[in-house]
Amino acid sequence: MSSGRHLAKGSGTPDVPEDGILRLYSMRFCPFAQRVHLVLDAKQIPYHSIYINLTDKPDWLFEKNPEGKVPALELVREPGPPVLTESLLICEYLDEQYPLRPLYPRDPLKKVQEKLLIERFGPVLGAFFKASDGGDLEPFWSGLDIYERELSRRGTLFFGGEQTGILDYMIWPWCERLELLQLQRGDDYNYDEKRFPKLTEWRERMKRDPAVMAFYMEAEVQAEFLRTRSAGKPNYNLLVKDA
Amino acid sequence: MSSGRHLAKGSGTPDVPEDGILRLYSMRFCPFAQRVHLVLDAKQIPYHSIYINLTDKPDWLFEKNPEGKVPALELVREPGPPVLTESLLICEYLDEQYPLRPLYPRDPLKKVQEKLLIERFGPVLGAFFKASDGGDLEPFWSGLDIYERELSRRGTLFFGGEQTGILDYMIWPWCERLELLQLQRGDDYNYDEKRFPKLTEWRERMKRDPAVMAFYMEAEVQAEFLRTRSAGKPNYNLLVKDA
Repeated sequence: MSSGRHLAKGSGTPDVPEDGILRLYSMRFCPFAQRVHLVLDAKQIPYHSIYINLTDKPDWLFEKNPEGKVPALELVREPGPPVLTESLLICEYLDEQYPLRPLYPRDPLKKVQEKLLIERFGPVLGAFFKASDGGDLEPFWSGLDIYERELSRRGTLFFGGEQTGILDYMIWPWCERLELLQLQRGDDYNYDEKRFPKLTEWRERMKRDPAVMAFYMEAEVQAEFLRTRSAGKPNYNLLVKDA
Repeated sequence: MSSGRHLAKGSGTPDVPEDGILRLYSMRFCPFAQRVHLVLDAKQIPYHSIYINLTDKPDWLFEKNPEGKVPALELVREPGPPVLTESLLICEYLDEQYPLRPLYPRDPLKKVQEKLLIERFGPVLGAFFKASDGGDLEPFWSGLDIYERELSRRGTLFFGGEQTGILDYMIWPWCERLELLQLQRGDDYNYDEKRFPKLTEWRERMKRDPAVMAFYMEAEVQAEFLRTRSAGKPNYNLLVKDA
């Protein structure tokens, strides 16, 4: 298993055993990569994490996938081996290839409706990044209104029902980062529990989910990473004990 | 069935029988809507086409889908009824809900690889629009290189194999429009058959596909529509006999 150290240009190929286990090229602070970790962990699929320094990517990464993208999943047992990119497509593949503990609904209509809600989160996460960067907070809250209404309409513990489903995991990385937003915005931060009663309870429930806990990161650490990145010297290895 | 006339603001709700048949809200010149027509026609799923004037949308469209998007598919038999948007998601839904004549591969790996190639077409169609708007042609050709290589690697008549599949239909609308680009660019047009031998043959084959033929439009008509749109008076009803 990876130590969590992010490999940079000049690093040798990853020190991972040739054991046929999936390899996930990831970055510890990336919310898109987090989606794939969540799905792999929720489905209890074994995998090796290989973390990449995105500011100074190792050359061998481009041999794996020409665009050097992260997250990328290497299917080491398949001829090639193929390397999949795009967080949503990787998650769909995993849910089809590993049918135990399904995350997508089986019914085609329910499935497409879930995908549409994931698609509609695109502008919401865009609004998160803007708010995190000092922009207006309201567009992010307005985006979350859709999910508050939806959870209220469903009347379930999670979007997936009585247990987590794909929508829970696909939107979680940005919902986990509410505390980061609070740290960044200080007195400006105006999350309103009365506006988001269902999402507030849902977040507490999600924080106790094993897959969420396995990749959870304290807001202070996220903030420290972003601080070093803004200063032009991103410290990818904040979580590595001997960093 | 719709006459093909595009309904504008002030129009009554569409004159379509209450027969439980799918309703596709579309626009005759829209390549994204064309994707859905191609899939419906290839799978021989009955549907009503309801064409929308996108410059001056009818009020009732927003009751069907709040964003007023096209293409949109109304599942009139389902409680609600639900209205699906996003061309790719509608096509995935149709292929799952109507399993006859499958367009996506069944194998999860082959399926995700097809989806990745569809995803990679995003920047290519973006380059098409720029080229169609007078921009550089080369980024579009470079994008097509990927698909030329892929078809050559597969060694099949279509991307789908010996018959058309999802990738054929998802990229077709912009490949159909090569003649439009030629009309628009005149002497600038530098499509190179030697660079695209496989795609050139594939295009001729595609033009004989019944689903492609059912929605095919002559480049001159496309060009005329775009001309009227650039002039600020888009004529959506160019194909309507009594327009």
